[in-house]
Amino acid sequence: MIVGIIGMGLIGGSMAIDLKRRGFASQILGVEADAVNASAAQKIGLADEIVSLEEAADRADILVIAVPVGAATKMLPQILDRYQASPEGAKKIVIDTCSTKGQIVRSVHYHPMRSRYVSTHPMAGTEYSGPWAAMPNLFDGRACIFANTEESDPKAVSVVEKLYDVLNMRPIYMNADNHDVHTAYVSHISHITSFALALTVLDKERDEKHIFDLASGGFSSTVRLAKSNADMWVPILSQNRENILRVMDTYIDKMKEFRKAIDEYDEDRIRDLIGEANRIKKIIR
Amino acid sequence: MIVGIIGMGLIGGSMAIDLKRRGFASQILGVEADAVNASAAQKIGLADEIVSLEEAADRADILVIAVPVGAATKMLPQILDRYQASPEGAKKIVIDTCSTKGQIVRSVHYHPMRSRYVSTHPMAGTEYSGPWAAMPNLFDGRACIFANTEESDPKAVSVVEKLYDVLNMRPIYMNADNHDVHTAYVSHISHITSFALALTVLDKERDEKHIFDLASGGFSSTVRLAKSNADMWVPILSQNRENILRVMDTYIDKMKEFRKAIDEYDEDRIRDLIGEANRIKKIIR
Repeated sequence: MIVGIIGMGLIGGSMAIDLKRRGFASQILGVEADAVNASAAQKIGLADEIVSLEEAADRADILVIAVPVGAATKMLPQILDRYQASPEGAKKIVIDTCSTKGQIVRSVHYHPMRSRYVSTHPMAGTEYSGPWAAMPNLFDGRACIFANTEESDPKAVSVVEKLYDVLNMRPIYMNADNHDVHTAYVSHISHITSFALALTVLDKERDEKHIFDLASGGFSSTVRLAKSNADMWVPILSQNRENILRVMDTYIDKMKEFRKAIDEYDEDRIRDLIGEANRIKKIIR
Repeated sequence: MIVGIIGMGLIGGSMAIDLKRRGFASQILGVEADAVNASAAQKIGLADEIVSLEEAADRADILVIAVPVGAATKMLPQILDRYQASPEGAKKIVIDTCSTKGQIVRSVHYHPMRSRYVSTHPMAGTEYSGPWAAMPNLFDGRACIFANTEESDPKAVSVVEKLYDVLNMRPIYMNADNHDVHTAYVSHISHITSFALALTVLDKERDEKHIFDLASGGFSSTVRLAKSNADMWVPILSQNRENILRVMDTYIDKMKEFRKAIDEYDEDRIRDLIGEANRIKKIIR
């Protein structure tokens, strides 16, 4: 099967590696708007050829959109338009890998070729980006969300299930809007708390040059996500705005509860809050 | 050298393991108020004997206080009193390993035996606690703060430097109050942000049972510190109250800046905030 991958970054590049070496893809056509990334993707061997979006849509059996969600939302209707105009289009499949699902799903809800699109979110990644960040086995054992599969052709869904099975991912089926609520809680807020932590400490560091001598392992793991890329995260935070604002409000309230307890020397209350938070042990290994 | 360790938990127990097997301690005397932990420490082999605090003070050449900072602050003057009453006391050394240094150092500032005390903070740990959490090599390569060494006998300081050298720690010398400001920024706030994150997500989980199916690696690392123990953290947050409140205020302001930018669809501002936060890459590997 010829697989076209749009965006030769961490996600697209890592998919390319495993789909090729595990035999799902006979050929990888890469689409990459950034010239440096395009050369790198070819040099590293992520793609067999770098081609235009149009050529990839015409030649590939399945297209994977692995670019930030803002760009993906613009690109998807164009790809379905091209499928509609082509005699081969009705057999082709396009998927996206974006971290928010509501807007992109709504953007093609009434498109005549909607059934050729399967909306997915493979929940894997690192804080690094670009073709250099691509790695084998990135997806192994992780969850992949399939959103609104009832709008897709069942045979197309089966092919995409096969693709993610080759990547060793565990499928979870979900409504796109529920997906966006859940990821606001278990992914997006973590990034915002890390960004805010980095900003807080970097502010202080302007005066105190040696503050980072003391950075412990705990700080490093808590602040790790603050290395994440703005190109990816700006559109996520915009597109999932309502859910994220709601989670942030809850989070700021919890911080204020802690602050009040510490301010009032209320050790019993601090102990209760920590005890409640400790329940996370039972859930996260 | 006979080493007495008060508190056979993660820190005390891990010290016991490496000080013994690397030849610094000929014998480890453990002091442990909790009966279950005391039996475990002996069964695991962390201590050669479990003895009373008084016996440990009388028999050990060097005493390590590795209990939560509230208890340590009460215990330290009693130990120096006992040194004062003993003919051997002027040759003995006591150290603490607490995560806040201001109050404990002030508590014995005028004690006639102050010079026998060396105030340290080995910056290592995990989110687990108790004798079962003790592990070899916990301290290797990490920083150890020495606070206010000018108040200690220089020969006592040398012995303690030797002890931490055996643990492969890198010494940093610092005023106790500066220590408390710096650790508020690079350690204490990370714990509070993790506790608040856990509380936020656990709140949501009451309604949505399956939210944790989606928990990604990023969430796990950001929330990891929320597993930390209340017995340790309640006294830290109390003792370092002023510094922590100041950092929390900055942090809450940063969260509100983010919230405002997201609320106002101000993508340029979100991009700037993430870009600033990304500077952490240059500092944390």
